[in-house]
Amino acid sequence: MPRIRLDLAYDGGGFAGWAAQPGLRTCQGELERALTTIAREPVRVAVAGRTDAGVHASGQVAHADVPDALVPGDPDAAQRLALRLSRLAARGGDLVVRAVSPAPAGFDARFSAVSRSYRYRIMASAAADPLERHTAAHVPQPLDVDAMQRTAEALVGLRDFAAFCKPREGGTTIRELRAFTWQREGALLTAALTADAFCHSMVRALVAACVRVGEGRLGLAQAAALLDERSRSPLTGLMPAHGLTLVAVGYPPDDLLAQQAERARARRSASDLDA
Amino acid sequence: MPRIRLDLAYDGGGFAGWAAQPGLRTCQGELERALTTIAREPVRVAVAGRTDAGVHASGQVAHADVPDALVPGDPDAAQRLALRLSRLAARGGDLVVRAVSPAPAGFDARFSAVSRSYRYRIMASAAADPLERHTAAHVPQPLDVDAMQRTAEALVGLRDFAAFCKPREGGTTIRELRAFTWQREGALLTAALTADAFCHSMVRALVAACVRVGEGRLGLAQAAALLDERSRSPLTGLMPAHGLTLVAVGYPPDDLLAQQAERARARRSASDLDA
Repeated sequence: MPRIRLDLAYDGGGFAGWAAQPGLRTCQGELERALTTIAREPVRVAVAGRTDAGVHASGQVAHADVPDALVPGDPDAAQRLALRLSRLAARGGDLVVRAVSPAPAGFDARFSAVSRSYRYRIMASAAADPLERHTAAHVPQPLDVDAMQRTAEALVGLRDFAAFCKPREGGTTIRELRAFTWQREGALLTAALTADAFCHSMVRALVAACVRVGEGRLGLAQAAALLDERSRSPLTGLMPAHGLTLVAVGYPPDDLLAQQAERARARRSASDLDA
Repeated sequence: MPRIRLDLAYDGGGFAGWAAQPGLRTCQGELERALTTIAREPVRVAVAGRTDAGVHASGQVAHADVPDALVPGDPDAAQRLALRLSRLAARGGDLVVRAVSPAPAGFDARFSAVSRSYRYRIMASAAADPLERHTAAHVPQPLDVDAMQRTAEALVGLRDFAAFCKPREGGTTIRELRAFTWQREGALLTAALTADAFCHSMVRALVAACVRVGEGRLGLAQAAALLDERSRSPLTGLMPAHGLTLVAVGYPPDDLLAQQAERARARRSASDLDA
């Protein structure tokens, strides 16, 4: 069966996460139901980043193997399918299929991906901001953003992030954190993170470490020393899910996908792509 | 009774507008209920901008005359009162009393105000953005932002905005639109407007005129010529409420408030402050 690529955005607030779970509303569950309705046969969806309950996405990527009739033949058909899927899967516009396209040869939304980028937003002000309450964590304490930026810089690199990962049998916790920066715009602090992949809830733990330093509750050296820990540290905790958004997934150029697919399959067991 | 100033922010989505209405959840209604609960006697609230149903605020200002015991004596007491009012008036954090302070002599949230600033956000992209669906209008058609900016410039000035105002007996529709600019950031277009005051739904009509021009459905000269109309024009329509946020209210320095209060009272009948 031919494969289609789906570019997705969603407000995580109404979903019990990406992954299908019986009896719960999930992104995968709603999309598979929508595709199955249109295809009139069961369709499964694979995804680049299996976001947790409450985590948002503006640049999520998925794929599905579908009957020939479903593969859009031109941009108009693609847009019609995207709109129809959005309508079937969303509730009050909380999930949007931004684009549907025939997948290039060798494309796998999860195993072809070479990078994931997340954004974490914090409203750092005494009073909460009602207009940001669904997409930014509220931190009423004053935060030293320069210290947070230095902490982020100290964490970047190819490292074992065990101290920031939910333990999971068999999986490695080595990841390449390529970028981690903080930006301030008024009371809004935004962290931008890019890695080859993130392990489960790693972004929220990395951001929590920076916030602890920004609050003065953890030293920069202590935060950096966490990288020596072999398991999740109780020093950092986890920032809430609703401040987190998966903003982009990177793929190699189409002509490299097929040969890369073979390599990616070999790596598969070592690659846990959740954040 | 002494007067307090309330600085407010709210997500308009859960309110039938600012103004109290029997049987409906409104910002004024919830705040008056909260203040009345704490004061143990009826308290009324007056506001700078009586926002419509669905319109948000990040910088709304109100005042209330309250028993002496309610006036905060120091910043800690002020913050405690603000938190308590927020808790009583909000549902799921949708209204926040950002600050409470003793009002300076002569201060009236509505009649002392010398300027109101609004922001209107448009997500201009084929696909809607689920994370912006409550705070930005979605316009799937391509928009010519330069033409929208030129339209905005043509509308700035001290003018009769009858073509952009909901008719209302007796009130003047002359306003000084001091600033009206468009900014693009990716697919997000943001209009920033400041005037001495806006008449009812005037911001949404001004933005609608720009959007019509941006879509190519109305010429720039036609839009500017609307200023010659003596009543609301059917050519523009109204943008939806949820893209609009009252972001700031300007007041004169405290030492000018008392003398200005007298002038403002004289102007009162001519000043309809809704947007």
